[in-house]
Amino acid sequence: MSVVSVQKALSGDIGTGSEVTVRGWVRTRRDSKAGLSFVNLSDGSCFAPIQVVVPDSLENYESEVKRLSAGCGVIATGTLVPSQGAGQSFELQATAIEITGFVEDPETYPIQPKAHSLEFLREVAHLRPRTNLFGAVTRIRHCLAQAVHRFFHERGFYWISTPIITTSDAEGAGEMFRVSTLDLANLPRDAGGAVDFSRDFFGKETFLTVSGQLNVEAYCLALSKVYTFGPTFRAENSNTTRHLAEFWMIEPEIAFADLNDDANLAEEFLKYLFRAVLAERGDDMAFIAERVQKDAITRLEKFVEAPFARIEYGEAIRLLQASGRKFDYPVEWGLDLQTEHERWLTEEHVGRPVVVVNYPEHIKAFYMRLNDDGRTVAAMDVLAPGIGEIIGGSQREERLDVLDARMDKFGLDRGHYGWYRDFRRYGTVPHAGFGLGFERLVVYVCGLSNIRDAIPYPRAPGQAEY
Amino acid sequence: MSVVSVQKALSGDIGTGSEVTVRGWVRTRRDSKAGLSFVNLSDGSCFAPIQVVVPDSLENYESEVKRLSAGCGVIATGTLVPSQGAGQSFELQATAIEITGFVEDPETYPIQPKAHSLEFLREVAHLRPRTNLFGAVTRIRHCLAQAVHRFFHERGFYWISTPIITTSDAEGAGEMFRVSTLDLANLPRDAGGAVDFSRDFFGKETFLTVSGQLNVEAYCLALSKVYTFGPTFRAENSNTTRHLAEFWMIEPEIAFADLNDDANLAEEFLKYLFRAVLAERGDDMAFIAERVQKDAITRLEKFVEAPFARIEYGEAIRLLQASGRKFDYPVEWGLDLQTEHERWLTEEHVGRPVVVVNYPEHIKAFYMRLNDDGRTVAAMDVLAPGIGEIIGGSQREERLDVLDARMDKFGLDRGHYGWYRDFRRYGTVPHAGFGLGFERLVVYVCGLSNIRDAIPYPRAPGQAEY
Repeated sequence: MSVVSVQKALSGDIGTGSEVTVRGWVRTRRDSKAGLSFVNLSDGSCFAPIQVVVPDSLENYESEVKRLSAGCGVIATGTLVPSQGAGQSFELQATAIEITGFVEDPETYPIQPKAHSLEFLREVAHLRPRTNLFGAVTRIRHCLAQAVHRFFHERGFYWISTPIITTSDAEGAGEMFRVSTLDLANLPRDAGGAVDFSRDFFGKETFLTVSGQLNVEAYCLALSKVYTFGPTFRAENSNTTRHLAEFWMIEPEIAFADLNDDANLAEEFLKYLFRAVLAERGDDMAFIAERVQKDAITRLEKFVEAPFARIEYGEAIRLLQASGRKFDYPVEWGLDLQTEHERWLTEEHVGRPVVVVNYPEHIKAFYMRLNDDGRTVAAMDVLAPGIGEIIGGSQREERLDVLDARMDKFGLDRGHYGWYRDFRRYGTVPHAGFGLGFERLVVYVCGLSNIRDAIPYPRAPGQAEY
Repeated sequence: MSVVSVQKALSGDIGTGSEVTVRGWVRTRRDSKAGLSFVNLSDGSCFAPIQVVVPDSLENYESEVKRLSAGCGVIATGTLVPSQGAGQSFELQATAIEITGFVEDPETYPIQPKAHSLEFLREVAHLRPRTNLFGAVTRIRHCLAQAVHRFFHERGFYWISTPIITTSDAEGAGEMFRVSTLDLANLPRDAGGAVDFSRDFFGKETFLTVSGQLNVEAYCLALSKVYTFGPTFRAENSNTTRHLAEFWMIEPEIAFADLNDDANLAEEFLKYLFRAVLAERGDDMAFIAERVQKDAITRLEKFVEAPFARIEYGEAIRLLQASGRKFDYPVEWGLDLQTEHERWLTEEHVGRPVVVVNYPEHIKAFYMRLNDDGRTVAAMDVLAPGIGEIIGGSQREERLDVLDARMDKFGLDRGHYGWYRDFRRYGTVPHAGFGLGFERLVVYVCGLSNIRDAIPYPRAPGQAEY
């Protein structure tokens, strides 16, 4: 008798007639008039539950088996046999059923065997992984995360954990959360009456990071190929379906590289991830395609086959202006592209993913490399059908004098960025990188419409239960 | 002509006589009287640099090559040939050298080709990956992180990212950092004059997590085998060589499992990680063994071969009392084991890793499962020679009534832990897990004496540069 996962029991790798034990939680129970109960048991190892056929000859049949309801914890031992029913390869003919835990009050158990609204399930985030959808999302998310690490590892990248608590504002772009151990009821003050941060834990003001990029650049200029994969934070009070206050970000950085190398890496990376999902999570993706997003599988297949288009920002503006399309936001050289513009480009104009490159310098961050035209920087956005912008990246300004001039222009204090200037003083090399919000990726692959469903416990304005 | 990493160039996988380009940063330059310069170039892809032999016939030889100093960024093209020198398989006979960046003032460049104190290097954390030691530590750390994800993936575990910002104090054990967007200069007050956290970003008080365990348990009771690998925080003002304010933690959790399963998993896990380092980072470990910790390799080899011992806490107390050894801290049933006790047990008494199990209930956390004796809990600590405690874990209390009684005893508010109680009301199952500080692992493998050297940018009291 060996304990196996449901995934293993259904895989066909175990001989018919084998005695095995499976363990999990009841999804449904159905009793037949012939004195049998059919208990669907899920252990989360794969999408499908296994059907356990329980005869009324078991001594705890009346006392316990007949009381089983959705959510009960069960250990089932029996013989694995080919299933008679449709849609399932094997079933378990039980010889013993042990219940580890009943459901206290089946009537009020939140995860009933029926469809729940996503809003409701967000209120019970600790129980939602027991549903079909969140089981699938969790496994797909895991598959994507593994593929991220594997992709970079296979290509000689090193994982760098950049600081979560930081004194620097990576881009001047995001609102930041303060991190402090000061006693709010009794704040220390300096002579002028201002809060005295020299008394705080780190001896200065600290915040949660908005990006690991600046820190990982330093490692890039020593180890050549590096990446981060860690949490980042934005304190913007935007209560939308597209923003999280806490989310995971992937930021590779490559040395001796230009914007073209960066775009190549982004394309190879996204295709690798989607191929992994298609190859490894067929069961969950079939459910997503059936219940959430009809073209979930075909659009990934199309994505990995199509070569990305590349287009200059200036050309994108001309195309949008010539499109004859009415947009809500103005289209003009020097203005940033809005989602409606991005989606027209990728969905209607080219019909596949497109990398837009070389944006006006004044709408992009200070660290992006100034092009020879003096008015654009070597920035890129990767746009994809069905989602819009999914990756943003750039070649970094490796020339110290140009960087300094741009920092002055952006009103940034050189002294504050002393260490960031340093590795441009010491053996600077062209380098480039990009950032990808991990939950944006999960939203896309799983066809979700709210990013709060793409992370186990969402953090958004007003939402920090658990 | 193809661009290759130094690792690839030295690997023997490229035919002798091939024309290749390597890129990296100068470690040393030596000029011979015969009109040749020997430039050691490192790109971080492996421990060894490659020797580039530059003839004075190159047109930029006098103007540029002769100015090369440690840290300069270089692109070298030439012919790969077997090396005449000892200790190196191949070298590059350069036909072209391009310098992407000189070092501004070689005299003051912090990373000179000599030994630096670790204290000094901590002050230039953005440049220390350019040293032999921190290059090695970074690659070993990466190898360990990859092995963590691979180990769990191969065994059907799913990665869960638990919240970084949280409202719950996982263990009541650690001092926490506050996370807030309130304006400190102008704190909102409620009618009673207390700080009004309903006006804070999340509408309540929030902190940085000290552990993802409670959150990951909920996922375990849906997906059976899960793990976290993410940052955790402790605001203890302990300025020691063993504490970080921000560090990464690995927390697996398994359903239908007891303390014995937990100990088995811990043993298998640690051995897997160390085997990965031995197999994949021989170059860096050879350096560690030569310069940092003489037995760095042999102790890992010994570790993976030895079966862990298992010992009851009560028996450990008896052994310590009978040892005839004078300890600084008292040894008595009911007191926690101190590092000196742990090291005696693992290093002197059993001479290999040992798992101590079943600790007195009052010295362990409320969520650990009460044993039938009523006075111990199913807790374990894994102790290893050379480091002491490396893993702490337990079987979790899955019986709601017992958990409630223990929460009462610890003075914890049941209402605050409502969701944690929930999955014990709904199909509870025996489950267990453990926690492992990732940097502790890096410290051990790399033979470091200060944990601040085990993470790219350390965070400790008073230390949050970058």
